Amino acid sequence: MSANKAARIGEEVWKTRIDKVNAELVTLTYGSIVAQLCKDYEGDYIEVNKQLEKMGYNIGLRLIEDFLAKTNMGKCINFKETAETISKIGFKVFLNITPTVTNWTTDGKQFSLTFEENPLADFVELPDDGRAQNELWYSNLLCGVLRGSLEMVQMQVDAHFVSDVLRGNEVTEMRVTLIRTIDDELPPGED
Amino acid sequence: MSANKAARIGEEVWKTRIDKVNAELVTLTYGSIVAQLCKDYEGDYIEVNKQLEKMGYNIGLRLIEDFLAKTNMGKCINFKETAETISKIGFKVFLNITPTVTNWTTDGKQFSLTFEENPLADFVELPDDGRAQNELWYSNLLCGVLRGSLEMVQMQVDAHFVSDVLRGNEVTEMRVTLIRTIDDELPPGED
Repeated sequence: MSANKAARIGEEVWKTRIDKVNAELVTLTYGSIVAQLCKDYEGDYIEVNKQLEKMGYNIGLRLIEDFLAKTNMGKCINFKETAETISKIGFKVFLNITPTVTNWTTDGKQFSLTFEENPLADFVELPDDGRAQNELWYSNLLCGVLRGSLEMVQMQVDAHFVSDVLRGNEVTEMRVTLIRTIDDELPPGED
Repeated sequence: MSANKAARIGEEVWKTRIDKVNAELVTLTYGSIVAQLCKDYEGDYIEVNKQLEKMGYNIGLRLIEDFLAKTNMGKCINFKETAETISKIGFKVFLNITPTVTNWTTDGKQFSLTFEENPLADFVELPDDGRAQNELWYSNLLCGVLRGSLEMVQMQVDAHFVSDVLRGNEVTEMRVTLIRTIDDELPPGED
């Protein structure tokens, strides 16, 4: 599937099959989650990152069903197609954005998503405590969503942010690595 | 302003001026918040209700700006108009639903919103521990959003759920009471 075809599918599904709500509500609701976690973990941002990723993972495990049902997607033929599907169909139908797929490694197992827009972080400012800018990955929920949803379609990935405009970086970039394809077959001796 | 006019404005603003995201994402994200709070407060649902309301209050304080900017709404002439505006413009432009305004008291200071649909609670099941059904108001964030946003336009209200289909009730109903109109004038002695 070409990037153009993915973009057409994403647009079509977004327009015709998605129940929608106001993005601003999501921005503020997500902000509440991050604030609550910062309070719960007393400003331990490393732990907050972990919790956001874990929440996202649990969301991803369920979101993929909705995604597959709405898009009628089949199996991607390779990780490049997976990347285009994530960007132009996945992000499109959930957040109405299409991050750019870029910075592929030559083995085709690692790419970046760069976010020109990010509804989770609109008008957000990180706490000005001299630590959040170096430690908090504000939108880390998205990494978990990718990990959880891809695990449900037999791909174990690592996803993590490497830069964020909220930290003062020029771009917001998430690095996604295929660790392994999970075998459907049961291990020997089980049935 | 008539209910019909409010409905037309709500529809128009929703279609032309709102950045949108997938409702399913909101359902799952909101579910994560509630789950996190239930964990934080170790199943003390009364405290979870309070925290959800407080989160909603803080969201409401900010959401109202977006609402006023997008809708160009002026001051409502009375609480009945406020109720129609909340239902047919407020809920419409944020959640794409229009709860029914009903059960007015004769003094015009108290009404109910009944929710035929509620994107926050789609496919949700309350914990089956024999307590959540009696103690948890799952969508309590919405009460806080109303309280916070109305406070910013000079109305002090109480909003609380009196029934919820998640608890097995026939309808989901929120009761809204105008406590007082907040005077813009400064108290004597201050300037």
